[in-house]
Amino acid sequence: MGAPNTAGASFHEMWRDLAPIGRNTTTNGYRRYAWTEADADCRAWFKAQTETRGLTYEVDRNGNQWAWLGDPTAGNAVVTGSHLDSVPDGGAFDGPLGVVSSFAALDELRARGAHPTKPLAIVNFGDEEGARFGLACVGSRLTAGQLTTDQAHRLRDADGLSLPQAMERAGYDPDAIGPDPERLARIGAFVELHIEQGRALAARSDSGSAAGNAPVGVASAIWPHGRWRFDFHGEANHAGTTRIEDRRDPMLTYANTVLAARKKARIAGALATFGKVSVEPNGVNAIASLVRGWLDSRAADEETLAAVVGEIERAAQERGERDGVDVRVTRESFTPVVEFAHDLRDRLSGLLGGVPVLPTGAGHDAGILSASVPTAMLFVRNPTGVSHSPAETAGEDDCLAGVAALAEVLEGLACH
Amino acid sequence: MGAPNTAGASFHEMWRDLAPIGRNTTTNGYRRYAWTEADADCRAWFKAQTETRGLTYEVDRNGNQWAWLGDPTAGNAVVTGSHLDSVPDGGAFDGPLGVVSSFAALDELRARGAHPTKPLAIVNFGDEEGARFGLACVGSRLTAGQLTTDQAHRLRDADGLSLPQAMERAGYDPDAIGPDPERLARIGAFVELHIEQGRALAARSDSGSAAGNAPVGVASAIWPHGRWRFDFHGEANHAGTTRIEDRRDPMLTYANTVLAARKKARIAGALATFGKVSVEPNGVNAIASLVRGWLDSRAADEETLAAVVGEIERAAQERGERDGVDVRVTRESFTPVVEFAHDLRDRLSGLLGGVPVLPTGAGHDAGILSASVPTAMLFVRNPTGVSHSPAETAGEDDCLAGVAALAEVLEGLACH
Repeated sequence: MGAPNTAGASFHEMWRDLAPIGRNTTTNGYRRYAWTEADADCRAWFKAQTETRGLTYEVDRNGNQWAWLGDPTAGNAVVTGSHLDSVPDGGAFDGPLGVVSSFAALDELRARGAHPTKPLAIVNFGDEEGARFGLACVGSRLTAGQLTTDQAHRLRDADGLSLPQAMERAGYDPDAIGPDPERLARIGAFVELHIEQGRALAARSDSGSAAGNAPVGVASAIWPHGRWRFDFHGEANHAGTTRIEDRRDPMLTYANTVLAARKKARIAGALATFGKVSVEPNGVNAIASLVRGWLDSRAADEETLAAVVGEIERAAQERGERDGVDVRVTRESFTPVVEFAHDLRDRLSGLLGGVPVLPTGAGHDAGILSASVPTAMLFVRNPTGVSHSPAETAGEDDCLAGVAALAEVLEGLACH
Repeated sequence: MGAPNTAGASFHEMWRDLAPIGRNTTTNGYRRYAWTEADADCRAWFKAQTETRGLTYEVDRNGNQWAWLGDPTAGNAVVTGSHLDSVPDGGAFDGPLGVVSSFAALDELRARGAHPTKPLAIVNFGDEEGARFGLACVGSRLTAGQLTTDQAHRLRDADGLSLPQAMERAGYDPDAIGPDPERLARIGAFVELHIEQGRALAARSDSGSAAGNAPVGVASAIWPHGRWRFDFHGEANHAGTTRIEDRRDPMLTYANTVLAARKKARIAGALATFGKVSVEPNGVNAIASLVRGWLDSRAADEETLAAVVGEIERAAQERGERDGVDVRVTRESFTPVVEFAHDLRDRLSGLLGGVPVLPTGAGHDAGILSASVPTAMLFVRNPTGVSHSPAETAGEDDCLAGVAALAEVLEGLACH
């Protein structure tokens, strides 16, 4: 697999054109929210890439964009792509790397003179991050029937504008939205390339061995994950006069639970994070009456996840009894494990010469589609592991290795 | 010291008249903020009490209300009183118990036929709680010269209204505000009766011995106290994908510091509370980049307080190193110890037959005045210790014991 010079040139050009769109010049973060002006600029860019390459341009009923090489209706299509929207002040790579790499990989295939025997498409799924309407993967969920038309109509942004209203203002037909099983039935395989959100690949390189150096990996699964709200009810009181033995301070119970969560997760090889807190009355000289903490937890399998969350809850209850604090736990959301199609995963790993196969804790459009279509993911090494942040980055060589790997995969799946 | 029947009747009547003013019927808490309508109603009540008793009514240049028995200008006056304003959703006792008990004690003196040989006054200090302008004891601070006219002019409420504007709208002359040394020079002693904010007196009764049963105590000192802001700087990252070993999670450092604060304070016999927190970005699936926690700490002496805060800071720094989190500590405010005048304190304790002498962690107008005038405080037992809350309460017998004690003290100081 040589250096993809054609792909490299087109990659750089596309990256340069996308770079300024929706970028906040103060934070350097991207604010590309669904159906906004920045989103429209990204969509115009996608359409221009399609036209430049003489591909067939389509927008499906849910506003997802498609660029087709070959007959979209022929069936058994090989589809790649990702998304162009961002979280608030997100990085440049989460989403766009997959779309840009898809076009660059197609350019590489053409430069090689490869002839696809199956239809090949690049997709840009709408509203993957859910930054505006609070639900992730809206475009793929609608298409896969995992979000009903009614549910979609009830989604509202912070200004109270509904999803259909926002789509209509952006020039799309909101009456069309809904499941699209015919479209999915025409797809034989979907492959999403994405920057790794974590340092699993980078950590292999840290070991220094040549075998450890892997700029690209294949996804095995998306860990099951969920969020749990912990309400710690104590008693408001004067911080300057209430004796320690008379206190029922929920901040202590919360603090102990934060540390217990880290410990239980580490022992189980899982993840458990308290990143959001709210406190009442939240006064400097007031013992809190209520501390609310949200636990995000993920693990390789649902049994481990349930065990870890159960242990964290038990630790909270035990400490709550000592503190005179009432602890209530509410599961706010839960997503079961997604196992990517094993044969496709093995085929990709084979095509790429046995690259690492690794799980991820983050949701993706590929996770949504995997319920309907054989689906796989490629991850590109992230040297810092940072994601959902302006500091998110990937090395240029690794990005081009990702393009080369995707070209290899597309050739293997669509041309033979 | 018999049951103060006259005082009891007048106490009940006054308590009943004050009860509905500024009370929120949803929370049952009081919202009597300086220079609002509820405050004006409290002030009208004070003036009516003054007139009913044929006392001389005065409002000083800072809006504090005075009710005089005898010549205000004669000097060596004995002054008692407290405040009528409240914290947000405060209780009925913090402040009003002192004012109502002052009038009831005066009624008791008169019923006994006691003849004061010195001028006697009851004062209602304005804006003690600082709920509106963010600074406590504004009325007494201005009078004692501990808050300059310039500083007072810069105080603003949440709507951006300045203190002078608020006073003017309430019908007071804002051009008059400033230090009032002549007024202070005419005071020989100031005694403030207040509900105890804590369970020190109640805990004595818990012991069951007759000697332990003390409805009233005398203050020895106000503990030195301060607030420190702890900034825990980590690194924002994806909670679902970042390996535990790659995290720099400031929530862990914060949590460990909260528990360390409790432990260090308990060992030193001090108080240390984290009651206010802010988190960035405060997202459920985001490792926090910044956790800010505010420490309120108090101790019997400044040396102990400095040692406790130093130990908490060291614990934070040590844990921060383990977590890869940068910890910065900023002292936002500090109030030195207030030792009430020893001879006055001993005289009160003697007049009351050797009641308990105890410190408090809370600031009061008496603490402000103590720098200029011999000052003492009486505390009335608080069975639950709860304060700054609608649940704040005191037993009827204990309130009347407070009135009797204050009458005894005023007779001792003003009539002999």
